[in-house]
Amino acid sequence: MVDITQKQSTHRTAVAQAVVKVSRKETIEAIKKGTVPKGDVLSMGRAAGFLGVKKTADLLPDCHPLPVEYCGIDYEMEGLEIKIIITVKTFYKTGVEVEAMHGASVVALTMYDMLKPLDKGVEIHYIKLLKKTGGKSDIGNQ
Amino acid sequence: MVDITQKQSTHRTAVAQAVVKVSRKETIEAIKKGTVPKGDVLSMGRAAGFLGVKKTADLLPDCHPLPVEYCGIDYEMEGLEIKIIITVKTFYKTGVEVEAMHGASVVALTMYDMLKPLDKGVEIHYIKLLKKTGGKSDIGNQ
Amino acid sequence: MVDITQKQSTHRTAVAQAVVKVSRKETIEAIKKGTVPKGDVLSMGRAAGFLGVKKTADLLPDCHPLPVEYCGIDYEMEGLEIKIIITVKTFYKTGVEVEAMHGASVVALTMYDMLKPLDKGVEIHYIKLLKKTGGKSDIGNQ
Amino acid sequence: MVDITQKQSTHRTAVAQAVVKVSRKETIEAIKKGTVPKGDVLSMGRAAGFLGVKKTADLLPDCHPLPVEYCGIDYEMEGLEIKIIITVKTFYKTGVEVEAMHGASVVALTMYDMLKPLDKGVEIHYIKLLKKTGGKSDIGNQ
Amino acid sequence: MVDITQKQSTHRTAVAQAVVKVSRKETIEAIKKGTVPKGDVLSMGRAAGFLGVKKTADLLPDCHPLPVEYCGIDYEMEGLEIKIIITVKTFYKTGVEVEAMHGASVVALTMYDMLKPLDKGVEIHYIKLLKKTGGKSDIGNQ
Amino acid sequence: MVDITQKQSTHRTAVAQAVVKVSRKETIEAIKKGTVPKGDVLSMGRAAGFLGVKKTADLLPDCHPLPVEYCGIDYEMEGLEIKIIITVKTFYKTGVEVEAMHGASVVALTMYDMLKPLDKGVEIHYIKLLKKTGGKSDIGNQ
Repeated sequence: MVDITQKQSTHRTAVAQAVVKVSRKETIEAIKKGTVPKGDVLSMGRAAGFLGVKKTADLLPDCHPLPVEYCGIDYEMEGLEIKIIITVKTFYKTGVEVEAMHGASVVALTMYDMLKPLDKGVEIHYIKLLKKTGGKSDIGNQ
Repeated sequence: MVDITQKQSTHRTAVAQAVVKVSRKETIEAIKKGTVPKGDVLSMGRAAGFLGVKKTADLLPDCHPLPVEYCGIDYEMEGLEIKIIITVKTFYKTGVEVEAMHGASVVALTMYDMLKPLDKGVEIHYIKLLKKTGGKSDIGNQ
Repeated sequence: MVDITQKQSTHRTAVAQAVVKVSRKETIEAIKKGTVPKGDVLSMGRAAGFLGVKKTADLLPDCHPLPVEYCGIDYEMEGLEIKIIITVKTFYKTGVEVEAMHGASVVALTMYDMLKPLDKGVEIHYIKLLKKTGGKSDIGNQ
Repeated sequence: MVDITQKQSTHRTAVAQAVVKVSRKETIEAIKKGTVPKGDVLSMGRAAGFLGVKKTADLLPDCHPLPVEYCGIDYEMEGLEIKIIITVKTFYKTGVEVEAMHGASVVALTMYDMLKPLDKGVEIHYIKLLKKTGGKSDIGNQ
Repeated sequence: MVDITQKQSTHRTAVAQAVVKVSRKETIEAIKKGTVPKGDVLSMGRAAGFLGVKKTADLLPDCHPLPVEYCGIDYEMEGLEIKIIITVKTFYKTGVEVEAMHGASVVALTMYDMLKPLDKGVEIHYIKLLKKTGGKSDIGNQ
Repeated sequence: MVDITQKQSTHRTAVAQAVVKVSRKETIEAIKKGTVPKGDVLSMGRAAGFLGVKKTADLLPDCHPLPVEYCGIDYEMEGLEIKIIITVKTFYKTGVEVEAMHGASVVALTMYDMLKPLDKGVEIHYIKLLKKTGGKSDIGNQ
């Protein structure tokens, strides 16, 4: 584990995404109309994502535990794809990129799990960092 | 949550994948030679993946807890991609697809976390189910 | 911990409740209209409750871990009170009463946490078992 | 989740209660004499409550993780009621009210779980905040 | 992870120990008299040990999750040593040796943590399996 | 729990050890050659140890949660013994001794669990603090 005892705390932000791709138009409609039998996919995904962000250091061996001071989750739907955009912030010695990416994957997996009875062809794509600020090297921040 | 109290236990297998795509050939070489400063990426990913599979029901609200009776993780490297193949088995009333997919995502995120200092362009792709057996509808099992 | 190794598995059901009492009519309206700033209180409560039921044996020392095979959460609103009704089922050697009561308390606390900015007078009451079936002594089952 | 990155840390205290109501005088006597077959209810409740306070952000989606810097648990018995009084302190950007209330509910549920074989009529009441200090609005602090 | 899907469940028992060695007679007396400022060391150790046994598969990557159907913890004090004896039982396809050893270590660490302010010389020894029954090879069972 | 709200943060280090004693020379050779069937014992032990250090406050009731800012694990093999040396650092109000000792025990138990099929005589010894700095009383720091 990297030794961060001597680092200064700075304001850190990370934005990550995951894309859930369904196989049928009806799946998207069921999400929008709130008729998925297992419940409200977007709200339950949000709850799971918040918890997932906070549990990142519990699952990834090398990851420092840190105070998650903000987490926000938005959804963008287009065609058969639902893009999950997750923003995490802290004031600490290390960044929150992995937390944001882990949160995005947990939201995506929660959606997969809830949609499974409706659609056997759901896949998860493009879990990646969109932006980070506050560390030595900012990304995606033009 | 689906009521499974009246279902019969059967042997269940699920195979899922995730693809970690790095941005530089040197990253793959460091993994193969074991020179990644944070340690042995493949073994630590395996440890994290085993734990991740077992914690799936802790993170996904709608997912039934179940006895994970086997988990195996293999890696295939080609070009700039590392494919993680994870197999999960149980003898229970419901399948282990989500467990396998969650495990694959945790391995991928562990690799991302350990490779971050070497390579700023790592992405995670194609988290998907390759095969399942033992439920009402088998997939990928021709 | 009670030794249950020699017991037979039977179908078990437990129904528990918790009552969240708010202090202003506007709070109830905000929940119903979905205008609580922290999000959809009922869906996020449901997600947290499902996870809470599954984590009961992680928090209560003397409680046996068991396969949660069904969990359902309903809400009844009347006046300033929201009654949370949670049903848990398993096929196992011991009952799910404590799981149901723990789940009810987690739903109630999630509501408290999300409503706090709107209403400083929220209290939680009457966490109790309404019904259990499947053990030596059934309760509430006339 | 509320964004607290720009807030200042202050000393925070919260005191919460839960009331466990048993149905028979003999139950209270067994607790006092230490003859409950499952063990020392008050000490095991205290251990579970400390752990519960620390796990609050693991269970409640919207709750910030924070450094729990003190937790104390006291019991007051009168008639058929055991009042659990729990105090939590931190020096951080947000309060510990929900942590105290969650801890109180975990102590109460642990007592319920341990007393169940002796007394089928145990209920949990009045989980509420008694006092908080250190935030914008103090409560119960005259 | 070993594949146990094809194995038969049998009754399994494991007994493990850990020894906590303190450096001063006064420490043992404080435990016996219940005057340790942090509380009742033996009851809090028992609560932590029960939870530790149940969380073994959460911490050890290669360990199968299993239904812990009994856990009992006893203490033997002699001179400056406290021997923790922990018994775990299940009816399952694999044994509970590691669960018993992990529980013993958690009890010992809880005692260390609570005694630290009184005694700087506490050590933990001899975490080992005393007996197992129910698998292919029994140990300590003459 | 000790009230640390009024304490100042200082740099804290703790070094702890555990000794895993195997019963046959062949076990040590299998570890060194990487031929243990369950995988790379030293890397998987390291992954589990990092996670174990971070989860200490989840298992030990009286232990404060704290920001683990560094963790390093080394192994020394001599004869039939493998000594695990674990270093933990933080900048906080309380020390990391128990975290280091818990991490050492988790590494040792992971090794035990992975070596069990090869060697029935593995024991764990001498879990103890070697050194601490940064608190009122330093230990082992001449």
